[in-house]
Amino acid sequence: MSAFDKSLLRRSVAKLLIVRASGHCEDSQREYPRWELSNRTLKRLLGDGVGGVILFGGTTNELQCRCRTLKDWSDESLLLCADIEEGLGQRFKGGTWLVPPMAIARMYIEEPRKAIQLAEEYGICIGRQARISGLNWVLAPVCDIDTNPLNPVINLRAWGEDPQTVSALVCAFQKGVSSQGVLTCAKHFPGHGDTKLDSHMQLPILNHDLERLNQIELVPFKALIESGVDSVMSAHILLPKIDSNFPSTLSREIIGQLLRKKIGFDGVVVSDALIMAAITQSFGPGDAAILAFEAGVDLIIMPEDPEMAIEAISNALLTGRIPMKNLDNALQRRKKLLAKVKEFTPKTIASKFNQQVENFEIESGKDKIFSENLIQKSIKIRNLGQITINQPTINFLQVPDIFPCQFLTACSPSLIIPEALGFKTVLSHAKGVSPWKDDSQEPLALERFGGAAFFLQLFVRGNPFVGDGFMKLPWLAAIKQLQRHHRLSGLVVYGSPYLWKQLDEVVAPSIPFAFSPGQMPEAQKQVLSLLFSKNGVKNSSGLTKEFRFTD
Amino acid sequence: MSAFDKSLLRRSVAKLLIVRASGHCEDSQREYPRWELSNRTLKRLLGDGVGGVILFGGTTNELQCRCRTLKDWSDESLLLCADIEEGLGQRFKGGTWLVPPMAIARMYIEEPRKAIQLAEEYGICIGRQARISGLNWVLAPVCDIDTNPLNPVINLRAWGEDPQTVSALVCAFQKGVSSQGVLTCAKHFPGHGDTKLDSHMQLPILNHDLERLNQIELVPFKALIESGVDSVMSAHILLPKIDSNFPSTLSREIIGQLLRKKIGFDGVVVSDALIMAAITQSFGPGDAAILAFEAGVDLIIMPEDPEMAIEAISNALLTGRIPMKNLDNALQRRKKLLAKVKEFTPKTIASKFNQQVENFEIESGKDKIFSENLIQKSIKIRNLGQITINQPTINFLQVPDIFPCQFLTACSPSLIIPEALGFKTVLSHAKGVSPWKDDSQEPLALERFGGAAFFLQLFVRGNPFVGDGFMKLPWLAAIKQLQRHHRLSGLVVYGSPYLWKQLDEVVAPSIPFAFSPGQMPEAQKQVLSLLFSKNGVKNSSGLTKEFRFTD
Repeated sequence: MSAFDKSLLRRSVAKLLIVRASGHCEDSQREYPRWELSNRTLKRLLGDGVGGVILFGGTTNELQCRCRTLKDWSDESLLLCADIEEGLGQRFKGGTWLVPPMAIARMYIEEPRKAIQLAEEYGICIGRQARISGLNWVLAPVCDIDTNPLNPVINLRAWGEDPQTVSALVCAFQKGVSSQGVLTCAKHFPGHGDTKLDSHMQLPILNHDLERLNQIELVPFKALIESGVDSVMSAHILLPKIDSNFPSTLSREIIGQLLRKKIGFDGVVVSDALIMAAITQSFGPGDAAILAFEAGVDLIIMPEDPEMAIEAISNALLTGRIPMKNLDNALQRRKKLLAKVKEFTPKTIASKFNQQVENFEIESGKDKIFSENLIQKSIKIRNLGQITINQPTINFLQVPDIFPCQFLTACSPSLIIPEALGFKTVLSHAKGVSPWKDDSQEPLALERFGGAAFFLQLFVRGNPFVGDGFMKLPWLAAIKQLQRHHRLSGLVVYGSPYLWKQLDEVVAPSIPFAFSPGQMPEAQKQVLSLLFSKNGVKNSSGLTKEFRFTD
Repeated sequence: MSAFDKSLLRRSVAKLLIVRASGHCEDSQREYPRWELSNRTLKRLLGDGVGGVILFGGTTNELQCRCRTLKDWSDESLLLCADIEEGLGQRFKGGTWLVPPMAIARMYIEEPRKAIQLAEEYGICIGRQARISGLNWVLAPVCDIDTNPLNPVINLRAWGEDPQTVSALVCAFQKGVSSQGVLTCAKHFPGHGDTKLDSHMQLPILNHDLERLNQIELVPFKALIESGVDSVMSAHILLPKIDSNFPSTLSREIIGQLLRKKIGFDGVVVSDALIMAAITQSFGPGDAAILAFEAGVDLIIMPEDPEMAIEAISNALLTGRIPMKNLDNALQRRKKLLAKVKEFTPKTIASKFNQQVENFEIESGKDKIFSENLIQKSIKIRNLGQITINQPTINFLQVPDIFPCQFLTACSPSLIIPEALGFKTVLSHAKGVSPWKDDSQEPLALERFGGAAFFLQLFVRGNPFVGDGFMKLPWLAAIKQLQRHHRLSGLVVYGSPYLWKQLDEVVAPSIPFAFSPGQMPEAQKQVLSLLFSKNGVKNSSGLTKEFRFTD
């Protein structure tokens, strides 16, 4: 093979990579500079033929600009994707941030038709906003079934706790996204819902055999493939009963045999991010890329080292370790995938909005109402009760971390509504001074908080990188402790329905107690407006104490 | 006067207002929704003739888009301004964030010529970035003299601690900004440097007479007016020896007599934000606007209620309470002010950068080097020492607040460099669980932290809204306590040179101890790279523990 041919080969292989970029425009703005390529590197890689970019962080306005710039840096049609499972606003400020899918799954129990309709609208909302922003591929829906409430990473991201609910809802979601000309992705094959570990941090092991998978995990994937999902993403989990050597992403048994042959999926298979610890702990950057490709994966997201991945796969093709046919197939599938995209050109924007304000209002009025209604429908209030506001009260918030903590800013309702009533905010988080002591009966170091009552707001849910340490905090015992001392004035759980259920059994009936699966500011506002309505505080616009007006 | 004439009058009065907008594009992104007008209201007010907007928050990319949109909503030439005293990056992510002016004032002592040159480059950097972003008016320099180290609001924002230093440096700064075709503003007349209170929160009282003002406070203002500053901003402070009834902003004695007549300034006088508590505590929205205008103010920033301000001033003009001549003068001065602006048109951008990436790189390579050099020059290391890294150590950070905390994000060097060495981060902030106990000798509740050593990073400086409670934390006693218990492994002060000096007297010579006036990530990186260089950690790029890769 000539040097020219080798260079062409590397260019073809490069097309199969999806590298990572910040949604921000300037290098100095990157939030994870170790993982987000610099503009110089991005430009070079795109010039070398890299075929896709996954974007994280920034504002919708920056995202629009960013997608235009990336396309400009590439001579090929680019795949531009993001993990916006719960709305563009989950990753990009200014987009709509929707309740977690599990909230709709709960509605399915009572009103299956209504829930299916909502899941489709949910998909339309995400698809439309993605398209206007310049993305063409939504890395959703999550098809994992939340069969393990202690799963630290899937949890509320799932569309249900049983195969039928998940199947019905993910198909509706997919229909919604597709209607906007944007690609979808069923993840994480063959099913990440039952794990105890987070594959971002460790390799989870699942002891299921094929029979079990066929009964449970594979059902939503099959349904979604049947209804035309555009791509499938592999999970970094080990299923020793099927392949005891390789995690799914790198397993010929799972990708080549199960997904391609048995299920018969002939669309694009994309790996989950190869930089996740479940892979990097055992496989080097070149090996991981070759093994994934050998297993039957077409596109690779976030290879640990893009240039090494290109080199390694190219060499494996040149030496015959991987047949050239695999490359042709992957390129063909990628081409077919891109052919389904309805590109959104700036002209379309110009005709819809004024040219000068083309970046204005990614979130339509309809989106806003849809999102607010979903939040409202998903809130549960067990007891509106009466919260005493004329005694010293601590507005105690438990959050996983504060860098970042998307749902809290200077003016978040969970801070300013209680503060307007004279409550003093105390925030407990992973990097803060601990409020705990070593006493299983009296776990809260109450002596540190004077004699004040506690208004508790617990933001708890599974999420990547959060781990389960946070979910193991002794809130059950702490709430019993506060009740024994008559110091619990009210309680809100934002996120986990499992924690809400657990607490339901210990919280005294007299305590005002609410639950919202959504953690976003709008959810805080709705919950607190309901809880405090008896105290004459209707909504945050009636507050007088939002005093500070800048940083 | 006909209805038509009245409407014209109101439109003229509207020109004198500067209303507030978020730098973000969408309403849902506003960080201070109570103070930042919605797009609908903004569009209406600009359509009604409101003549200026002050912007807060967002990214540089959004700011560019925002300025274009605002201009599009107005039929007049708009004044677009921001409080970017310490660089565009102080308010808008992606811009350069410079060391506080006081850092350059400190250099002036040793090398006055060099410091003057740096102050001019500082102004050029801010002016250029403001202009490219679409702003035409920088609300700087601060001409206050930091004669009171306990001043909670001016502090490091000042260009020095004596009249000569401040005069020399603010004139150089002004020259730099002006060279970029952007307007400047000398603030806060007649001098806010000696106050004990923050006028955002209360009305400060200064017992200085005219003789004292002439000797100290007025010197930099006179120098800057002499050298052609474009506007002067009034302070919300009461000087009973000059006007015992009205704070400067509303005082005919101070604006009309002292500034206009005695000093002879005939340019634009702009009020500091009228929504600040120093004003709103005693004056209603209409009254405050009339009184400011009567006193001789031309333009009003952030009236508490823009429509009420227009109505009140218009009526005062119609009834003859304020002579029409005042309106004519103010409009004339505004017109002259705008005539000095060199507009930056998108075409200029297009020729400089590629059209597709017009929003790319507000911060030039030169700006970056300039900012890094300033940080480097301003860092003081008393003892590089040896930090023991093989004992359990807490990376203890003291910050004023975390919502927002501009200098801390998930990957900030002050977090990840110590964490990479195995230190456990604990963050102390106004809304966290308190690390203190009621014991003046042993103020830190050390029993809550096991037996670990403390690596302390104190982020302390005066700033609007921070108040002085934070500066009163017992760090002096706590450091003595940690030393008594042999648990202080190292110490960094970011911000206040006064705290650094105080601590210098109590910290044992063997303790590694550093100071940086800048608090930004780059300052953290430089300080910690120096402190830990002996331990083989050269810089943050050599770290392996930056593990988490997304939210």
